Amino acid sequence: MPELMNEPPQLRKDPIIGRWVIISTDRGKRPSDWVVDPEKKTGGFCPFCAGNEDKTPPEIIAHRKNGTAPNTPGWSVRVVSNKFPALKIEGELNRRGEGIFDLMNGIGAHEVIIESPDHLLELVDLPVDHIRDIFWLYRERVVDLKRDMRLKYILIFKNHGKAAGASLEHSHTQLIATPIVPKRVIEELEGAHRYYSFKERCIFCDIIRQEMQWTSRLVVSNPNYVVFEPFAARFPFETWILPIKHSCRFEDISYEESYELAATVKESLQRLNNALGSPPYNFIIHTSPLQDKEYFEYHWHIEIIPKLTKVAGFEWGSGFYINPTPPEDAANALRAVQL
Amino acid sequence: MPELMNEPPQLRKDPIIGRWVIISTDRGKRPSDWVVDPEKKTGGFCPFCAGNEDKTPPEIIAHRKNGTAPNTPGWSVRVVSNKFPALKIEGELNRRGEGIFDLMNGIGAHEVIIESPDHLLELVDLPVDHIRDIFWLYRERVVDLKRDMRLKYILIFKNHGKAAGASLEHSHTQLIATPIVPKRVIEELEGAHRYYSFKERCIFCDIIRQEMQWTSRLVVSNPNYVVFEPFAARFPFETWILPIKHSCRFEDISYEESYELAATVKESLQRLNNALGSPPYNFIIHTSPLQDKEYFEYHWHIEIIPKLTKVAGFEWGSGFYINPTPPEDAANALRAVQL
Repeated sequence: MPELMNEPPQLRKDPIIGRWVIISTDRGKRPSDWVVDPEKKTGGFCPFCAGNEDKTPPEIIAHRKNGTAPNTPGWSVRVVSNKFPALKIEGELNRRGEGIFDLMNGIGAHEVIIESPDHLLELVDLPVDHIRDIFWLYRERVVDLKRDMRLKYILIFKNHGKAAGASLEHSHTQLIATPIVPKRVIEELEGAHRYYSFKERCIFCDIIRQEMQWTSRLVVSNPNYVVFEPFAARFPFETWILPIKHSCRFEDISYEESYELAATVKESLQRLNNALGSPPYNFIIHTSPLQDKEYFEYHWHIEIIPKLTKVAGFEWGSGFYINPTPPEDAANALRAVQL
Repeated sequence: MPELMNEPPQLRKDPIIGRWVIISTDRGKRPSDWVVDPEKKTGGFCPFCAGNEDKTPPEIIAHRKNGTAPNTPGWSVRVVSNKFPALKIEGELNRRGEGIFDLMNGIGAHEVIIESPDHLLELVDLPVDHIRDIFWLYRERVVDLKRDMRLKYILIFKNHGKAAGASLEHSHTQLIATPIVPKRVIEELEGAHRYYSFKERCIFCDIIRQEMQWTSRLVVSNPNYVVFEPFAARFPFETWILPIKHSCRFEDISYEESYELAATVKESLQRLNNALGSPPYNFIIHTSPLQDKEYFEYHWHIEIIPKLTKVAGFEWGSGFYINPTPPEDAANALRAVQL
């Protein structure tokens, strides 16, 4: 096979366990780019700051003051395409084989939600109604993108801090729409389905009931959301936020609920920051696939993973995590935070 | 539930996707231990160096000069228990439920293979016959531990460099024996089984044939081993080493084969070091479960993952990896290295 540089990205399926991988070319690095470089300094210029709107791809949607034009200042939250997308919207999927291997073209979308015009503010620093606007724009993008029948799943996630994989300091969220349902999502859907077949109840609803009754892993709850440390947490201080009312799709959230969600996320991050000294973290929305059918046994939620440990060979090799801090102890510490 | 500190470690099963997690207590950290500390310096003392044998748990087995006593100098490779084990050999499994959750005690073994008495030498620096002795000791430990019928799987892995999770500089390998078969291993076994059911051939043997014929992802091969970059590599320069002759168990290796394996591993690491400037890496032996039956459809192998990227929210949330370097380009660069 020829070199892939300057060709469209590919989605490749691991023939053994069925995991799909994006082989990216546009955001590609040459092998020599990987040579370890001990000193790397970030420049002072930031394309996400107000006034630099022409340094990003054009605005897809934004929350703006009335009367301000797209791609000019005046926005509070702004969505643009990723300048170095992992997947692209143009083209055909072209599913095919190559010897014993399976692949298709890397069709999809890769967008960036710039959370504020101010370089120095983090998500946790923003007022609740500003965070609500961010979540509402997530929802608007999902509703728009799901009309493209080629797209099967949308993953919304945030990498905060270098150790959590953020390449730009300015606070932002990413959205990746994929033409297949990712393996981890299928595993969750199958798990929820198995439980429902056995019990005729949602497993997430059962977990919520148990955590709210036992309270040892509970961090905080309010009328619509509950925050707890999961029983089998993979990581220290892994924190889940679930809607108490059963709902399989994030995008079915109401405008009122999105305010309460924003307040819950802000409080959760404040507690984590306070307990842990503002660690890097990843934040991921787990929700249903876009097309096909309604996955009524599923229950959307948010997982926050502070980046405190290095995932090492054991975890990669086995999918078997070692968590040195019991979630009950983490919940204790998070509940004890005075806000 | 009470705090877990000072109680035995637990194995906990994620109720949704079935993943087991060790909730460790002995190697436990209190929540406050996680507060981010910008400056940490390692002390000068190393318990793995020759002369400090009394600073580790007692020797389980070692490769030694004739006549030298256990737990004294004179060894070239030395196996001891991990001082802070994730799992312990004493006790009962005690599988049980807790509300809707499942758990059992953290029974198992956690050992360290100290690869040389010299603090400054890395695995790649050692002569081939010394590396052979290391691999042969891996095998001896597997053969010994598999007599304990409670143990279902042994994972042998190496974290090289801080970014890959190594907590001690002195070159070493870890061995963890678990009372369940890890999820990732089950996925590989099931994948190999599905393919065998369909084709009546081993999928790994088919991949070897194809890679040796196409050569675009091939790094190097010799009569008994082949080294290539996998088609759906999750990471840049992910490198697999497979025995060409079908074999489902690492521990069935012969003494002669272990010499050739050592030479192959050394050459692979030399090529990676040369191409990438000696990056941190993880090295994992993927092999069959210990008990039950013979997994004849499986094919043991080694995966080497240089730590070049940070795994971020997208990968955690989806099990969907973005690899910015096509494996064909990585193979090209590795083949081009002059040794």
